[in-house]
Amino acid sequence: MRYEHDNDSPVLHLTDEQCWELLTHSAHGRIATAAAGIIDIVPVNYAVHNGHVFLRTAPGNKLAAMTVNHSVAFEADGILSDEAWSVVVHGTATVLEHEDEIAEARQSGVTPWIPTLKDAWIRIKVDRIAGRHFLLGVQPEVVD
Amino acid sequence: MRYEHDNDSPVLHLTDEQCWELLTHSAHGRIATAAAGIIDIVPVNYAVHNGHVFLRTAPGNKLAAMTVNHSVAFEADGILSDEAWSVVVHGTATVLEHEDEIAEARQSGVTPWIPTLKDAWIRIKVDRIAGRHFLLGVQPEVVD
Repeated sequence: MRYEHDNDSPVLHLTDEQCWELLTHSAHGRIATAAAGIIDIVPVNYAVHNGHVFLRTAPGNKLAAMTVNHSVAFEADGILSDEAWSVVVHGTATVLEHEDEIAEARQSGVTPWIPTLKDAWIRIKVDRIAGRHFLLGVQPEVVD
Repeated sequence: MRYEHDNDSPVLHLTDEQCWELLTHSAHGRIATAAAGIIDIVPVNYAVHNGHVFLRTAPGNKLAAMTVNHSVAFEADGILSDEAWSVVVHGTATVLEHEDEIAEARQSGVTPWIPTLKDAWIRIKVDRIAGRHFLLGVQPEVVD
């Protein structure tokens, strides 16, 4: 996919379609949660399926935080030598419990970094998606 | 740096020293904020200096969120074909306003992805640091 920056502007705001395209072709992101005012951020593997983001993880603080406060932010990015992209999702996370939901999650093909016997499946319902593409080094460093 | 995993355990919890070493030798992370219950996550360039994490950024939502709720989480990671690491910092973010503080921030050498004339300097005071090193693919995929 080509990214057409207006007037060599270093930042391009991506369309929803471009955001989904980038999310679909990456597999590693970070999820941010806030339970009882405690902000946390955790790296995760993910997969996109049927317009949702699916995670698979061992139970832990991340999971506990989600059940207390379902609102999450999720980010994936990619950095090359002269360009970078970042996509951020705001949404609602659900720990999947019903077999039909878990079956759908399995279809996403997501694998955790470290498989365990107690994997939990999480689905993020996407409320908002936004992304930016950066041309790195287009502008000279500001002298200050 | 070598990472000695006990009994080929796929996950190694890193020492503070290992965490700082990894943070110091990377330059790209993500900061999570929560203002008025709105969780957000933003990719940033950063640098470590004098035991602090310094960011430099254009003013925006990220900055506004920090001034409302100073508590932040920050993550950096690295992923290779057969191993990965992630370091997470919990701390307090301050938008620097005094010239001596900004001078210290400049010494960190941090550069933003996209330099602008309105860069703001942010210092994260680190309250907690934790990290993990992963051996990927050590365990077979769970059959389920």
